[in-house]
Amino acid sequence: MNRLIDEPILLLDEQRVQVNIRRMADKAERYSVRLKPHFKTHQSRIVGEWIRRYGVRAATVSSLPMARYFAEAGWDDITVAFPCNPAMARNIGSLSRQIDLAVLISEPHSAKGVLDALPPGCRVYIEIDTGSQRTGFAPSETDALDQTLALINGKSDLHLHGFYSHPGHSYACRTEKEVRAVHEEAVQIMQQLKERYGAEYPSLATCLGDTPCCSVGDNFDGIDEISPGNFIFYDLMQEQIGSCPAGQIAVALACPVVATYPRRNEIAVHGGAIHLSKDSLSDMNGTHYGRVVSLNDDHSWNEAEQYGYVKSLSQEHGIIRCNDAFFASVEAGDAIGILPVHSCLTADCMAAYHTTAGKRLDHFRGRG
Amino acid sequence: MNRLIDEPILLLDEQRVQVNIRRMADKAERYSVRLKPHFKTHQSRIVGEWIRRYGVRAATVSSLPMARYFAEAGWDDITVAFPCNPAMARNIGSLSRQIDLAVLISEPHSAKGVLDALPPGCRVYIEIDTGSQRTGFAPSETDALDQTLALINGKSDLHLHGFYSHPGHSYACRTEKEVRAVHEEAVQIMQQLKERYGAEYPSLATCLGDTPCCSVGDNFDGIDEISPGNFIFYDLMQEQIGSCPAGQIAVALACPVVATYPRRNEIAVHGGAIHLSKDSLSDMNGTHYGRVVSLNDDHSWNEAEQYGYVKSLSQEHGIIRCNDAFFASVEAGDAIGILPVHSCLTADCMAAYHTTAGKRLDHFRGRG
Repeated sequence: MNRLIDEPILLLDEQRVQVNIRRMADKAERYSVRLKPHFKTHQSRIVGEWIRRYGVRAATVSSLPMARYFAEAGWDDITVAFPCNPAMARNIGSLSRQIDLAVLISEPHSAKGVLDALPPGCRVYIEIDTGSQRTGFAPSETDALDQTLALINGKSDLHLHGFYSHPGHSYACRTEKEVRAVHEEAVQIMQQLKERYGAEYPSLATCLGDTPCCSVGDNFDGIDEISPGNFIFYDLMQEQIGSCPAGQIAVALACPVVATYPRRNEIAVHGGAIHLSKDSLSDMNGTHYGRVVSLNDDHSWNEAEQYGYVKSLSQEHGIIRCNDAFFASVEAGDAIGILPVHSCLTADCMAAYHTTAGKRLDHFRGRG
Repeated sequence: MNRLIDEPILLLDEQRVQVNIRRMADKAERYSVRLKPHFKTHQSRIVGEWIRRYGVRAATVSSLPMARYFAEAGWDDITVAFPCNPAMARNIGSLSRQIDLAVLISEPHSAKGVLDALPPGCRVYIEIDTGSQRTGFAPSETDALDQTLALINGKSDLHLHGFYSHPGHSYACRTEKEVRAVHEEAVQIMQQLKERYGAEYPSLATCLGDTPCCSVGDNFDGIDEISPGNFIFYDLMQEQIGSCPAGQIAVALACPVVATYPRRNEIAVHGGAIHLSKDSLSDMNGTHYGRVVSLNDDHSWNEAEQYGYVKSLSQEHGIIRCNDAFFASVEAGDAIGILPVHSCLTADCMAAYHTTAGKRLDHFRGRG
C-alpha cells in the first residue's frame, strides 16, 4: 500500500487497453464494419500507435487542433466529429490536402456557407440526430436532407461520404436491454436513410459512434463504420450503463492520502475536481465522483472489493468514504486509486498517463 | 453579435476584477483583518499584480507547485491551504528559506511525522473544521489540539502561526441569512480557540477563508486574517448563495455558435465540459451548466436579460436552450458568452484569459 507518489497521476493499465482495443477490433471485423475509433478519449500518440497495430487506419477526433496533432503522428484518415462551422471551415487550410479529412454538416441553415468555405478535398458527412437531441439533422427533415445532399454532391471539389450519428442518449440507459433498444433504433434510422438515398447516391456510408451501442449492440446491418471512443478505457459510467465490467476499466487516478478522519471513516486525498473532473454517478452510494481501488506495487490495481467511494470533491481535495477494513489499512503518505466516473474528462484534466509498465505517455493539449 | 472567435476563450472583465478586489480590500481594512487572498481561483501572475496594488502582501494557494509559481512572481508570504502531508513536506526544499511559507496541519495522526519532515523556517497553522467536514481538526478534539500545538511549539525551527479554517459548508447556503449563520458559528469557534489557547500561545492568529462568509459576514471579532479566493471573479454559484449580484461576475466563456436547432430553440456551441467544467447549478431552469450573456463588440457582456442557459455539456459541445428573441438573433459563426457556474474550475480548465482590453493573461499549469 505504501507508495511514494507526490501528486495525483493517472495510471493506465496497458494490458487492459490492449484487451479493450482487441475486443472492439474483433467485433468490428466480425460485423464487417470499419473501426474508426474516437481519439478524444485518450488523446495520445502512443495509444494511437497501439490501436494501429490492430489494423485500424482511420481516426475520429473532436476538434481541428486534435486532428492536426494526430496528422502529425502519422494518421492520414481523420474525421472531425464536431459540427463543422465557419471557424473550423476557415482554419482547415492545407490539412485537407495533406490527409483524408472528413467533416460533419450538422444542420441545414449554415450548411451552404460552411460548404462554400471548405477547402478542396474535404470528405463530408451529414450528421443525423438519432435521438440524442444534441446535434444533427432530424431524420424527418427530408427536405433539408435532400437539399443538403444535393448541395454537397454539387461541389466537385468535395466528397459526399455519408451519414454520421452519435446516439449519445445511450448514456441514459441503465441496462443492456435499454442500450440495445437505442442501438436498434439508431441502426434502423441509418438503414432507412441509406435506402432512401441509395439509388441517387450509391456510395453513401453510415457511421455510428457511441461506446454503449458499439459495446452491447449485435446488429450492424447497413452500418459501414463505427467510431466509439470511451471503450479504450471505459469507466464507472460505462459499467453502470452495462457496456463493461469494472475489470475492463483501464485507467485509475492514483492519489496521495493527505489526512485521515476516524470519526467519520473518511480520508482526504490530493485529487480533486481539477484531476477527476466533476462528472458524477448516482448509485447505492448516492451521488459520488469515483470508486476506490487498492493499488499494487506494480502500479496495477484491484477493483474486486468495494472499499469506498469519493463522497465530495473540491478543487484539489477529494473526500473518500470507505469501509472499516480499508480505512484501517491507510495512512497519510499512502496512495490509493480511484476509478473515474468519466474517463474522457479525467484524461483531459490530467493530460498525461503513467503506465503500469512505468512509462509516461503524452497527451494532446488544446488549451492554455 | 457577429464576432470572429475560432475557439472558446475565457473573457476577463478587468474593471469588474478591480472592483471585486477593491471591495474585499476595503472590507478587510474596515474590519481590521489581513487579506491573504486565495490565488487558486485566478492562478495568474498578472491578476496577482493587480491585487498587490491594493496593498495586499500575502497570498494563499492550494498546492506547492502553485506556491513556487507565485514565489517566482515575487510573492514572499504564501500559505499552502491544503493538508500538509509527507509528499508536500519532503518537497518544500529550500522554498521555506526563500519566502515566508505557511502550511496546514490538518489532522493529529500524521502531525508528528509531517512536522518532523518539514524543513526549517516553515510557519504552521492548525486547520480547524468549523463544520464543512472536509479537512481539519474538530474543535472538540481538545486533547489532539493540545498535543499538536505543543508539538509545533516545541520545534525551535518552525513557527506556530495559528488556526486556519475554510467554512466550505457555506456553499450549501441559499440566502445571505444562512451564510451569516455559518459565518457566525465559524467566528465563534475561532474566538473560543483563541481564548482557550491565548494565555499559553499569545501570538496565535486566526484565518477564515471562504468567499460566501467573507462577502456576506459583518462580524470579524477575533479574526486576524481572511483568505477568500473566488471573490476575484465570482460566478453563478456565488450569485445563488447570495455572495454577489450577476453584475460582479468577472469572467465569461466566449463560445462560437456551431449549429442552431429551431424546432427546440436550442443552439450548439463549441464549449463543453473540458472548457466550463461539469459543475452544475439547480434553479428555475432545472440543473444547468451556465447562463447565456450577449457579447458586446468591446469584449464586455450584458447579463441584464435572461437569454438562456446551458442545458447539457459533452466533451466539446454545449447545448444552449434560449428564448425566442435570442434564438432569432443568433447564427452559426456568432459568438455568445456563458457565465460559469464555478469560475475556479472554468479558469483551471481554460488555463488562460483574454481581457476585455484585448490582453492575454497567462495561468499556472500544474498538470500534464
